[in-house]
Amino acid sequence: MEKVNAYITDAPGGTVKFTQVNIDDEKGNVTLRPILTGICGTDRGMVKGSLSFTYNPEGYDFLVLGHESLCEVIESDSPEFKKGDRVVPLVRRPGDCPNCRIGRPDNCSDGEKHEAGITGLHGFMRERFKDFDFNLVKVDDPDLGDIAVLTEPTKNVVKAFEVFEKVSQRSVYANNISTYEGKKALIIGTGSEAFIYAFMSVDYGFDTYILNRHPIEDNKIEMCREFGIKFIDSSKEPEFPEKFHIDFLIDTSGDPGTIFKYVRKMNYNGIAILFGTNGKAPKTEIDGEDIDYIIERNITLAGSVDAARIHYMRALDYLSKWKRRHGEAMNKIITGYFKPGDIDLFENKPSGEIKSVIRW
Amino acid sequence: MEKVNAYITDAPGGTVKFTQVNIDDEKGNVTLRPILTGICGTDRGMVKGSLSFTYNPEGYDFLVLGHESLCEVIESDSPEFKKGDRVVPLVRRPGDCPNCRIGRPDNCSDGEKHEAGITGLHGFMRERFKDFDFNLVKVDDPDLGDIAVLTEPTKNVVKAFEVFEKVSQRSVYANNISTYEGKKALIIGTGSEAFIYAFMSVDYGFDTYILNRHPIEDNKIEMCREFGIKFIDSSKEPEFPEKFHIDFLIDTSGDPGTIFKYVRKMNYNGIAILFGTNGKAPKTEIDGEDIDYIIERNITLAGSVDAARIHYMRALDYLSKWKRRHGEAMNKIITGYFKPGDIDLFENKPSGEIKSVIRW
Amino acid sequence: MEKVNAYITDAPGGTVKFTQVNIDDEKGNVTLRPILTGICGTDRGMVKGSLSFTYNPEGYDFLVLGHESLCEVIESDSPEFKKGDRVVPLVRRPGDCPNCRIGRPDNCSDGEKHEAGITGLHGFMRERFKDFDFNLVKVDDPDLGDIAVLTEPTKNVVKAFEVFEKVSQRSVYANNISTYEGKKALIIGTGSEAFIYAFMSVDYGFDTYILNRHPIEDNKIEMCREFGIKFIDSSKEPEFPEKFHIDFLIDTSGDPGTIFKYVRKMNYNGIAILFGTNGKAPKTEIDGEDIDYIIERNITLAGSVDAARIHYMRALDYLSKWKRRHGEAMNKIITGYFKPGDIDLFENKPSGEIKSVIRW
Amino acid sequence: MEKVNAYITDAPGGTVKFTQVNIDDEKGNVTLRPILTGICGTDRGMVKGSLSFTYNPEGYDFLVLGHESLCEVIESDSPEFKKGDRVVPLVRRPGDCPNCRIGRPDNCSDGEKHEAGITGLHGFMRERFKDFDFNLVKVDDPDLGDIAVLTEPTKNVVKAFEVFEKVSQRSVYANNISTYEGKKALIIGTGSEAFIYAFMSVDYGFDTYILNRHPIEDNKIEMCREFGIKFIDSSKEPEFPEKFHIDFLIDTSGDPGTIFKYVRKMNYNGIAILFGTNGKAPKTEIDGEDIDYIIERNITLAGSVDAARIHYMRALDYLSKWKRRHGEAMNKIITGYFKPGDIDLFENKPSGEIKSVIRW
Repeated sequence: MEKVNAYITDAPGGTVKFTQVNIDDEKGNVTLRPILTGICGTDRGMVKGSLSFTYNPEGYDFLVLGHESLCEVIESDSPEFKKGDRVVPLVRRPGDCPNCRIGRPDNCSDGEKHEAGITGLHGFMRERFKDFDFNLVKVDDPDLGDIAVLTEPTKNVVKAFEVFEKVSQRSVYANNISTYEGKKALIIGTGSEAFIYAFMSVDYGFDTYILNRHPIEDNKIEMCREFGIKFIDSSKEPEFPEKFHIDFLIDTSGDPGTIFKYVRKMNYNGIAILFGTNGKAPKTEIDGEDIDYIIERNITLAGSVDAARIHYMRALDYLSKWKRRHGEAMNKIITGYFKPGDIDLFENKPSGEIKSVIRW
Repeated sequence: MEKVNAYITDAPGGTVKFTQVNIDDEKGNVTLRPILTGICGTDRGMVKGSLSFTYNPEGYDFLVLGHESLCEVIESDSPEFKKGDRVVPLVRRPGDCPNCRIGRPDNCSDGEKHEAGITGLHGFMRERFKDFDFNLVKVDDPDLGDIAVLTEPTKNVVKAFEVFEKVSQRSVYANNISTYEGKKALIIGTGSEAFIYAFMSVDYGFDTYILNRHPIEDNKIEMCREFGIKFIDSSKEPEFPEKFHIDFLIDTSGDPGTIFKYVRKMNYNGIAILFGTNGKAPKTEIDGEDIDYIIERNITLAGSVDAARIHYMRALDYLSKWKRRHGEAMNKIITGYFKPGDIDLFENKPSGEIKSVIRW
Repeated sequence: MEKVNAYITDAPGGTVKFTQVNIDDEKGNVTLRPILTGICGTDRGMVKGSLSFTYNPEGYDFLVLGHESLCEVIESDSPEFKKGDRVVPLVRRPGDCPNCRIGRPDNCSDGEKHEAGITGLHGFMRERFKDFDFNLVKVDDPDLGDIAVLTEPTKNVVKAFEVFEKVSQRSVYANNISTYEGKKALIIGTGSEAFIYAFMSVDYGFDTYILNRHPIEDNKIEMCREFGIKFIDSSKEPEFPEKFHIDFLIDTSGDPGTIFKYVRKMNYNGIAILFGTNGKAPKTEIDGEDIDYIIERNITLAGSVDAARIHYMRALDYLSKWKRRHGEAMNKIITGYFKPGDIDLFENKPSGEIKSVIRW
Repeated sequence: MEKVNAYITDAPGGTVKFTQVNIDDEKGNVTLRPILTGICGTDRGMVKGSLSFTYNPEGYDFLVLGHESLCEVIESDSPEFKKGDRVVPLVRRPGDCPNCRIGRPDNCSDGEKHEAGITGLHGFMRERFKDFDFNLVKVDDPDLGDIAVLTEPTKNVVKAFEVFEKVSQRSVYANNISTYEGKKALIIGTGSEAFIYAFMSVDYGFDTYILNRHPIEDNKIEMCREFGIKFIDSSKEPEFPEKFHIDFLIDTSGDPGTIFKYVRKMNYNGIAILFGTNGKAPKTEIDGEDIDYIIERNITLAGSVDAARIHYMRALDYLSKWKRRHGEAMNKIITGYFKPGDIDLFENKPSGEIKSVIRW
């Protein structure tokens, strides 16, 4: 392949450049160009140099950024795809552990998987790249539009709810009429992942709250109203929740102090999904009473990372459903469109950002 | 009922007395006398006044201690039991939540259950008491002997392994030949619960380690040898484990510092069972990297408390199996026999104690 | 309550009348009137007298028909509902078995549940009736329209897929990329339940076929095209399927001959859901090779009946999704609107019927 | 390897010979000799030519018989085994489907596995053979003795109970005190597999029955008494069971008439494991009411074949437990010892046979 423009970093040290690169050893039977690529906390963490687990591909002194994308097929030797198809490429690629062997590299048992744009594999923020058909998920709904770029963050949520469903089998989690009516879910954070967790939580029938330590912008307030989510500003309601217990806690902040503050307010058989990562988050103290609390209530804390092909497919289905039911609101999740070459976006989070995307 | 001698405390304040009590409102169709009662950390915690969640039965200013017992039927109006039968009474009694309704008060959803000798229900350390047949589990194996007094601590382990089996469904937990061969289990603590966890872990096929911060007595070393358990003295091997990761972590200490020290050494898809409680354990610090570690590896931490009737039955079956295979060793789990009236036992743990029991 | 017009039968003997009835012992805090009631094979079977398990309510010599309905609240003493709310009432009401106790009377362990319009409880085909709020599911989507009357048949499908998900845990059911791509589902029958099963099957990612022993009407052909379902007329393709094996078999016919014909074409780890009932279906022969086939391939056959509140809620969500994605096509599932008093509808199935409804 | 004496057949045609064979392309790092080999219905079926699915290994016009064995290591290049170790070799060897990839060839998704002594792989009835260490399960219990030859049939039972546990998750299967007390299990057949199923069923807490169409020999009656199993002679109790319903049905006969006779007596949420195969079993008729019965009661019928390494390990553990608890009785499962060269054993079942073995 000839030279193409790309966003690159040098993992794990950091920095970001938009420059020409030549990746000529790339294999695949489909050639793709990004339509949109999303930017998230992981991208910014890499640029800042705060994600120690990231690394460049073997033989390269740089790493192309980008794992959230909506792409277009520009050439295909695969019977599965034709020119013009819209696809989302998978982020994680399998090694040879038992989970990887059955298409679940998200649950990789030995760390031998790779992640595009994160660990040892070039990402999608470049004008053109190749991939194999089995790594691509087709976008079928013609009306989904730009929202399809949210497939990647949404697939993480779909997998996390699968984890929730599995671990909740340890007891009768539903109420005595078989539903989640009256059960409370609290999502910590108000970024795009937090909102997608909240949408899913509402779908499951939870009484759903999202929380931040400061007020949120009007567009986010509006998003909450549209989907029936309650927002809590913990600086104004420090005692929240006073009167009820949290049945389902989801953290997108990665902050241990906030996590354990709300673990201490969980209900019997409560389940906490740990999702957000922030290696630089400040320390917090936990004590014997915290451990007691978890034990006496049969509470489960489950880390959840990434997702498998099945979750990308389900993610597209959920996005399609939400788009059709809450059309205008869903479109407003994309709070900013940027051009290739914009560097500031990686260093400064725009005000009111839910999801910023680059249009290629 | 007339007056009987009993060990009592005043929950949650503490103290212990051996004195005559009159509990004349007790209902049940079977009259029992204890043969043996075991003493554990919970009993000592109550006597010390360090378990804030304990409380006296309604209408009483004291609580009869004792939840680990092996009893003999002395009178029965139930077709299920006859005079002379050996039984173990259940500790926890159901409320009306969905879990309690199906015989799983161990997973009580609202805290409305009670626990004999702990929360709102008189325990078994008294010369005579009544109970209903549906709260009694018969000891069938004629050769089980005194070891049947371990049913109560063992049932907790059976339930915790059920939790392990449920939450491990979130990924392929076994290796690629369907077994746990090569998987490492680490049990923190060297008391009776720790040993029973270790026996079960060996049965499951884990490479099993138990750990303490100091050397252990010869009887415990011998117990490890008999069952194929490896002992680690962390004061001498501070870097343990260096070369492998822990697939299954079980804590019986309740100490958050120790727990998180080893969580940081867990493997991908690792599962930690939090079991031991110690409200007075010192604080520890956790940071963003700890949360990251849990997430990136899809680690699950699960509190597990108590157990249901099914687990008592399985516990008797496991004890029977271990007794027959490791007869002499199993008998040595009971490290001391005491007489009713002995008070010191509640205040000072005998050296080398695995399980101390009172013979009634 | 005063007299109201109702469709009644005399179970299990049969016949149908539209006449005035007085059911004055009915309890409930919400008064309802049907907007639409659907008619299905069970209703026709009862009228014909071929469903031996049906019976009149205690103290009545008749049974009001109707279990598929969309109703309007006309009076409410419940804080949950107000006049004008659109609701779907639950069909099955719990007894006291473990499943009923946790809101799962669909899985009743002892047969002590009741079913509105079928077994011992008056149904919904009457101008007015009372029920308790906890038996009502609210229709939230304002755009769902008449399609909400399909909630009852759809909830059966949602539960059957839950059964599928549970029993498929016995092995790795997905392919080696974690999805159902390439897996074949065959649904026997072309009635409304068959189509709803097919819609769900397509959503799950199965390559989906529906089958009948004769050609189907154009409206059904069109429905297949819209949803991506393949229709097989087994009179013209007697060897179907020749080249592949069925991974998921769903029967809505209740005909043992047809069921076992296709069981013999199932794949390894295949799952068959038995759903359709027809007590008068002709006998068929099975032999030792049939049993061998099921064993050697680890095949599972699972009967599935009814559903719980959670499935009604999910059913509404699925209907809403399908309506928004395939609006016109979904509306065409209702192939005929009839007036209260029409009797012929119970005795003769209109040509091309997918779902016939009575508008009240 | 030089020539060795072996029992061979010509699959699927049948016959049996004891003759010298030379299998010089066999690979493996351990050389084994059988101590005992068991004979079962599959072996006799092959000799009779009634198992159409069997076939010779590629390049051979014969197949060495034998899949049940207890062997001794006579040479080892593996660090896992040393001369003199007692081992049981696995029967089934994986292909490349998702189940085979994770060590579960018993759940093979595409039929590309092989089975020693049955399908395309030479069996264990020969004086000496080679295998790889990863196909061998060590017998650890020094006191298990000859009973270890039952590992192969027992592992099938362990896997079938795993299937039972998985499919029973579809509802609350236990009673309302969390156990199987009061639940009825019926095992059809009185051969060695039937007895092992019955032992396990008793362990699970089922009220356990075994059934045959004729009286059984005194040794079998005695076996029932020892383990607490009830025997039913259906020729004398044609109405059995009259008063209760079967919660767990296990068939070892492969006879469809018998299976469906008792399916019609199953309880709500009942589970039937189909295990025994008999391609020549006579036909039976089933009708619409049979299908109704299965549906209305949410009954599950599950074929179960073979087992994985984990089940061999658990099988050894169960055998060890039963041996220690019922020593003399367990030894009597082996009802006859035969010498290599005996041919009659393959053609005529000795009277009172539970398990016949050949001592090498």
